[in-house]
Parts: sequence; C-alpha cells; structure tokens
Amino acid sequence: MGSLESFWAVIPAGGAGTRLWPVSRAAAPKFLHDLTGNGRSLLQQTVDRLAPLVGDRLLVVTGEAHREAVLAELPHVDPGAVVAEPSARDSMAAIGLAAAMLERVDPEAVMGSFAADHVVTDTAAFEAAVSTAVEVARDGWLVTLGITPTHPATGFGYIHLGAELPGHPGACQVAAFVEKPAADVAERYLAGGQHRWNAGMFVVRPGVLLDLLAGQDPEFAARLREIAASPDLLGQLWDRLPRIALDHAVAEPAAAAGRVAVVPVDPGWDDIGDYDALAVLLGADDGGVRVLGDASLVDVDDATGLVVPGTGRTVAVVGLDDVVVVDTPDALLVTTRAHAQQVKDVVARLKAAGRTDLV
Amino acid sequence: MGSLESFWAVIPAGGAGTRLWPVSRAAAPKFLHDLTGNGRSLLQQTVDRLAPLVGDRLLVVTGEAHREAVLAELPHVDPGAVVAEPSARDSMAAIGLAAAMLERVDPEAVMGSFAADHVVTDTAAFEAAVSTAVEVARDGWLVTLGITPTHPATGFGYIHLGAELPGHPGACQVAAFVEKPAADVAERYLAGGQHRWNAGMFVVRPGVLLDLLAGQDPEFAARLREIAASPDLLGQLWDRLPRIALDHAVAEPAAAAGRVAVVPVDPGWDDIGDYDALAVLLGADDGGVRVLGDASLVDVDDATGLVVPGTGRTVAVVGLDDVVVVDTPDALLVTTRAHAQQVKDVVARLKAAGRTDLV
Repeated sequence: MGSLESFWAVIPAGGAGTRLWPVSRAAAPKFLHDLTGNGRSLLQQTVDRLAPLVGDRLLVVTGEAHREAVLAELPHVDPGAVVAEPSARDSMAAIGLAAAMLERVDPEAVMGSFAADHVVTDTAAFEAAVSTAVEVARDGWLVTLGITPTHPATGFGYIHLGAELPGHPGACQVAAFVEKPAADVAERYLAGGQHRWNAGMFVVRPGVLLDLLAGQDPEFAARLREIAASPDLLGQLWDRLPRIALDHAVAEPAAAAGRVAVVPVDPGWDDIGDYDALAVLLGADDGGVRVLGDASLVDVDDATGLVVPGTGRTVAVVGLDDVVVVDTPDALLVTTRAHAQQVKDVVARLKAAGRTDLV
Repeated sequence: MGSLESFWAVIPAGGAGTRLWPVSRAAAPKFLHDLTGNGRSLLQQTVDRLAPLVGDRLLVVTGEAHREAVLAELPHVDPGAVVAEPSARDSMAAIGLAAAMLERVDPEAVMGSFAADHVVTDTAAFEAAVSTAVEVARDGWLVTLGITPTHPATGFGYIHLGAELPGHPGACQVAAFVEKPAADVAERYLAGGQHRWNAGMFVVRPGVLLDLLAGQDPEFAARLREIAASPDLLGQLWDRLPRIALDHAVAEPAAAAGRVAVVPVDPGWDDIGDYDALAVLLGADDGGVRVLGDASLVDVDDATGLVVPGTGRTVAVVGLDDVVVVDTPDALLVTTRAHAQQVKDVVARLKAAGRTDLV
C-alpha cells in the first residue's frame, strides 16, 4: 500500500507503565523499550508501522524529559516533528495541539493518533482499516478503530457498534463509548459481538477535532490554536490547559451527537498493560519459560512463565509456574502472572519511601 | 565451663554446598558464608563455639584453595593450625591426618571433630555433651554425639542407641550406625525414640582412632602417621590415600565390634543442607519473608519464604508462597522451598556448560 495522501500520524508518547516496573521507569517509560524481542522499541515499531501510510508526515508528542530519548530513537525523523509538552496534560491537550499544528500546515490533512506503546501484529489488517478510516474522516467524521475483543477484558473501554455507514463499506456509526465494564458485562459484550475495544486510535481532520472540542470547551480549543499560531506561548499557556482524555473531552459527546464512526478491525492489537499481557504476547501460554532478552542467560528447570534478564547475570528458575522474573541493574522483580497488576503497588511503595531513583 | 584439659578441636572445612548455590561456590564454599545473619561465617561460628572448650588447641583441615580464606577468617589462629590438603580425600584422610599430628604433639590428647559448616543454637547443651564425650573418650572409646531428631529426615544417617554405658551417665553404647533411611523407616525411627542423627561429631583419643583404622586398613593408618612424622611427604603421599568417609572406614566396623559410644544431645543442630533448611533456621515457618542480609532492600507483598539480597539491589517479591530468591553479583536463583534439593542440578548444568566461573 502506498502512503495515503495528506494523512498524518500523531504519536502520543507518554504514560508511566508502572505495571511494567522495573523495566519501565519514569525516566525510561514503556515506549522506549523493546518488549517484543525484535530489537526495536515500541516507539520505533509504532513509527515503522505507520511509515508506509504517512511517509514522513509524522508528529510525536512527548514529555520534555523524554524528547532527547525520542530523537535518539528516531534518527530519521525531523527534530521539529517531536513536540515536547512542558507537563503532562492528558491526551486531549497532546493530540489537540498536534491537530492545531497540522491545521495550519496542511489544509487537506487527515490525522490519526496512535499510542507509542502498543503492538499490532497484523499489519495488513491495520493498514486496510486505517485506509478506510481516512476515507471516512475526509467526509468530516471523527473515526475510531474498534478492536475485536479476544477476551472479556475489564481494563479497556468498549465501543458499541451502531448502524453501517452509508457509502463506506467496513465502517459503522458509533452507538456509544462504554466505560471499562464489570466482568459479567464484559462477558456479555464479548458474546454479543456488537462491542469493540477502544484502543484510543482516532482518525479525523484536525479542524473537525478542534471544532468538536470547541463545541464542548471553546476556550480549550482556542488556546490550542493560539499556541499553534505562536509556539512561543507554549510555556505560558500549556499548564493552564484542562487535564482530560480525548475520549471524555470530544469522543463521547460527539458519539452522543451521532458524529463518530468506527472501523472494526482485528489487527492483533495489544497495549501490553502488564507482565501477564507481555507473557501472553511472547507465547508463554504455550508452556515453558519465555525469555525477553538473551535466553542463554536463563537456566530453567520445571518452570513456566517469563524471564527478563537485563544485566548479563545468569538467572536460574527452578520449580515455579507462571513466574515473572525481571532482572535490572538496580532492581529485581519476582512475581507471578496472576499478580501482574500488583506490580504498580511496588512502585507506589517505593515512591512513598522516597526511592525516586528506582521508579 | 572452663576448657577441657588436653581436648583438641579438629575442624574439617570442606564440602561444596552446591545446594546453596549461588551463595556457596567452589571458590567460596558454605563454611565461608554468614548464613545466620549474625555477621560471622559458619567457620567463625564453629571456632567461636569450640573456643571455650579447647582454648587455642585447634586444627582446621581444609583444601589448599581455601587456606588463605580460612586464615583471613581466623586472624587469631596460628597459621600452623590450618592444615591444607593437596586434594579432597574425604573425611577419614582429613581427620586421620589431624589425629596423627595430635598423637605426636600431645600424648594426653582427646580430639573432637566438628564440621565447619553446621550450626548449633543451644551452646550449653552442646558443651555439656562434649564434656561427657571427652570423659568417655579418655577411657578409650570412640564417642559420637547423637542428635535428637526433630523430623523424619531422610538425608542423614542415624545412630541406633544401645545399652547405657556403665560409669558414664548420659552416654550409651552404639548398637549400630544406620544409613540414610527411606521416609517410612525415618518415621519409625522418630517415633521409636531409640535413634539419633549422625552429625559426624566424633570425640576420641587420636591413637585410638588410628589404631581402629589400622585394624581395617593398616597401610592407611601407617601413611597418615608417616606424613605426620615427615610433613614434607604430604604432597607425595596424600593423593594415594583412600577416598573414604570416617564413618565407613572406622565408625561402622568399630560399632559392630562394640567399641563406639554415643552421647545423646539436642543442641539445636542443623547442617543447613539447602535453602529449605536455611528458611526454617531463619524462622520462615512463622510466616512472611525472611531476609538474610539487608532487609531494607526487600519489598514484599503477599509472599512468604526467603530472600537473600546480595548485591545492594532492591528485590521486590509479590504473590509467591515459600519462594526462595538469592541475588548475587553474577547469578540469580529463583526457586521454592519445596524445590530446594534441585538447586544442585542447576550447578551440574552450569558445570556441564563449562560455566566454571559461576559455580
């Protein structure tokens, strides 16, 4: 597939990824790490995945603290395409600023936002869905990709599919965005077939996004356009922007107003939310111990799970099922796949103890 | 208790301790490590325990490779009291050489052999039993301490108690030494009350020991006396000595001949055979995670077991019961108390892979 005319990728590169401590740290978040073992960080894989669709039409929005690391990861990207937020203001500000910049650069632009720390294994399905979404977005819709659920996840929001979109085969209206459901509700969503995961992938014309925002919060939209017009104002205006997710600021009210479309797709998507998800991604469900890194460092006897050897030290694991061992130079984590969510509590305790050097 | 006249301690300091890898290594075996957390190595604790009984009447027999380390651990011990074996020839050669040396030094000597890597928590009971054993040994008996079993161990040999020894309250004859039993046999031994653990603690006059050996293997005893008379012959004669345990070479046949006595005692003895034993010793059966080392390095949530932080790194353990985590600069072990015996297999695999640097 050739690149899509005037289609721009916006890549928000943020998020602490505390459930992936001690690999993921405040100073080196999840998106800077290679979590698939192919030698490319999640950020690099995200750019690799989008390059065929956008060529060099790309903006990365990241925290000031990570700008240098992002530039080092992406040597072929124009430094001007890496926008540094003075502080974290959630996704509406990050993606909205990119929209305001693109609105000025390219009147024909359609933008798609794709988080820097997700994985997609079926590139062809992803490209086809994005291509459809771009066509729908050109007609003025806010378009989202709706990911086929593979299990009754309670950690994601869902998209309730509405009627098919006339003139756009493969796209539907969004009946509603639904919050993270309880387990029994998630089971019903999975069985019913009318719900998709909301992975935060939005495709839209920048002006449409900002106008939708202006309909909810005119000042917010005006500030973003002001900063885009006078970048020097960034430091002065940014910290006063509302801290809100794009979903709440724009997508949910727009869906209620019948302005949002969805392209259902099964692109083998994963946000690698914790070590259990990482273990699944690396094939641990097939048995044995999966190693992210140099497998010659790991000695296994009578064990299953995931080992991340990160220091060159030999790691011996004997007699544990679904274990998770993560070895880094200053911290070692030993847990189980079933306890993967509790890893964020370790980070919280270390923070509370003042060990900012470790988180 | 004052020191016992002409009583000498012989401390064989050997054994690989592979089930305590990666703490215990060929280059730094178990006896060189502090496994109780009191700041003293097991060797130092053994010397500390015996000093009140023997003063400076002490011989340590160790491998040539460990002589410097032993001297460094024992700065107050005369270097001449640390005997280096050119190669490992098992306990008969090691203790027999000490006997041959003491026979020449002190005609009144009674010697007691006590391994360098065991622990004893009830010092008073230990001292009283040794004192009784010394008195019995002066009458020409080979005397052993018989440890009260605390569980039906299958990893130790047992001593079957015989009749009480006339004139020596607290001592019995040994009916027989029994090999490591099967589990059901061990249960019977424990229930019956007539069996004690054989901890390899022998108290005997050096000449009696060597004469008993001469009764079984005259050349072996002659060689040992030859080396003691001409220490220069050590390098030439040592490697030709039989590789046999004192139990088999002397104690078992002597018991069959009615020449062995036993002093039953419950000194809180442990040979810390593996990480499960170490966990018990450190109180892990009372719940929670026990830390051998700096507890401030360990973050625990919903876990029990044993953590040995050995690198200054933070160790987080979440959601594992009876886990064993041992952190060293070049190797990390993660296992469970129930799999503690399998740790030696890790060492065997590393050796087979040529990783002598790690074992």
